[in-house]
Amino acid sequence: MSRNGKTVRDFGERGLIRWFQDLITPYDKALLSGMEDAVAVPVNDKALVVNSDMLVASTDVLPGMTADEIAWKAGVMGLSDLAAKGALPLGIVVSLGLPAETKANFAAALVGGLNCVSREHDTYYLGGDTNQCVELVIDCTAIGIVEQNHLIRRRGANPGDLIAVTGEFGYTGALFEAVLRGHKKPKKVVETIREKALRPRAHIREGQALAKADAVSAAIDSSDGLAWSLHELSAASRVGFRIDALPIPPICIEFATSNDLDPVSLALYGGEEFELVVTVPPNRWKKAQEAIQKIGGNLIRIGKIVDEPEKILVIDDDHRVIKPHGFEHFSK
Amino acid sequence: MSRNGKTVRDFGERGLIRWFQDLITPYDKALLSGMEDAVAVPVNDKALVVNSDMLVASTDVLPGMTADEIAWKAGVMGLSDLAAKGALPLGIVVSLGLPAETKANFAAALVGGLNCVSREHDTYYLGGDTNQCVELVIDCTAIGIVEQNHLIRRRGANPGDLIAVTGEFGYTGALFEAVLRGHKKPKKVVETIREKALRPRAHIREGQALAKADAVSAAIDSSDGLAWSLHELSAASRVGFRIDALPIPPICIEFATSNDLDPVSLALYGGEEFELVVTVPPNRWKKAQEAIQKIGGNLIRIGKIVDEPEKILVIDDDHRVIKPHGFEHFSK
Repeated sequence: MSRNGKTVRDFGERGLIRWFQDLITPYDKALLSGMEDAVAVPVNDKALVVNSDMLVASTDVLPGMTADEIAWKAGVMGLSDLAAKGALPLGIVVSLGLPAETKANFAAALVGGLNCVSREHDTYYLGGDTNQCVELVIDCTAIGIVEQNHLIRRRGANPGDLIAVTGEFGYTGALFEAVLRGHKKPKKVVETIREKALRPRAHIREGQALAKADAVSAAIDSSDGLAWSLHELSAASRVGFRIDALPIPPICIEFATSNDLDPVSLALYGGEEFELVVTVPPNRWKKAQEAIQKIGGNLIRIGKIVDEPEKILVIDDDHRVIKPHGFEHFSK
Repeated sequence: MSRNGKTVRDFGERGLIRWFQDLITPYDKALLSGMEDAVAVPVNDKALVVNSDMLVASTDVLPGMTADEIAWKAGVMGLSDLAAKGALPLGIVVSLGLPAETKANFAAALVGGLNCVSREHDTYYLGGDTNQCVELVIDCTAIGIVEQNHLIRRRGANPGDLIAVTGEFGYTGALFEAVLRGHKKPKKVVETIREKALRPRAHIREGQALAKADAVSAAIDSSDGLAWSLHELSAASRVGFRIDALPIPPICIEFATSNDLDPVSLALYGGEEFELVVTVPPNRWKKAQEAIQKIGGNLIRIGKIVDEPEKILVIDDDHRVIKPHGFEHFSK
């Protein structure tokens, strides 16, 4: 595609990122490739892992979200990629962009929320920057460390590896349908879904437990949706995947049935659930389970890595292709 | 001031920051106070120094700036606070917010510019995030390390310490007058001033040299203007200052004279020159000079730290109060 006259919308977020990669001088000591969700550089024997994620009101804030919920989401967006690398957070540094007419109480609630999400993940809101901006922007940079030999990468899965996740999928997909497409019944169900969807957790403890146990071959978080994460994870290792068990909460199935929606689509393409998606060599499965049990988390087997090009969901005898769809900025 | 109904504009950037400080749980291992321009946490025997600075098009970009100049400024904004702490940058991580209609070539020029400003400061553009946003936002997070016992703080100046800077002041003040207030003569002078003002340097090497030589008692960068920096530096140590020599480039004096402006005001209140402002105990002055000479930099004595409340500029017999003015977001 010729670039002259084209806008960033024409390229799409991922097209842009691929182009931008070629414009950047690689750092020869970097411990993660340029296509990863975080950067990592050596500091003594440790890997310093840093991830910046920008929350922008016009694209990332659902109608009706409170300051506290917005701040929570911004913090989890930053921390979740550290979880996928197995890193222990040292803290978050946050740049706030606020429209000048923002109520001061709202701004303070954002700051209080950022403090809260940090403390709830056993880390600290270390500081940052405050600016005037046309719209609300929260750029959260999470900083963490992990032993270099425990750093988990997106690449490393092999055919035969089990695929597992740290929780269920469907809440955010259901919430998007409720808020953005008017599927609002049953009311009580939607309220519960809202609460669950807007309080995701970054799975820091799970990531660290798996890293320390050396139990996984690859990992990614599911911030862009389970389907997209599976595609990214498999593309990094040039393998395929076969999913045979999707953990969908009963309440999301109830919501889907009530609104004539497909619960599988809600689970696959919703995005922003921040569960970890990991691959585990069969001989390390027990080790992985024990590590997760010890910290009181969940590790749910959903399928396995296979040879390319298979990228499917198998339910009973029904084979369904999982599409590389997920949230993307500048998407048409 | 009652907070109910007030907007962030009513508070001003610094009023907000003071309020926000109270809402954040302090990290007991933090190596810099919450009022510093960067955060620092221990990693083994090192101090990890992190600074996020957000550039926002509507407030930080002068009319006519190219993508390359904007990217340069964003990078220097991030790196300059590391310089003031004496840290060695490990790299920058950048979140880009781009309007969807941004030309792809412009976006690529931003990325290329961020790579360039990193390499020119002997560091790397490690990665980041790309987002859709209503206006252009570049949040640059600079990450660096320094031995804990070499970390330079904003606080630590004592009466009798010499005050020194790493370069001259006046270019950006002059450029603001030219671009924002129409003082455009002589044309050739304005062109030269523009070039100098839009290519500031983060004084990383100077900061590190002074840190390693243990030569300064306190430091700050002058990103919000020399006057403001002097006030911040002295407030942190509850001291005053007496400036008796302002290094103003002849071309800025020529510009001021031609446009009937006060060159001293241009130098004091311009902002964004990114020179370091340091305090040096008299018995370490020689050491400081030698450290800076060794790396080919400048260290210009401009005055000395005195007891509070004196905060003045003395030129010949003229005593002039230096006001705590500088760039501030949400300022009325």
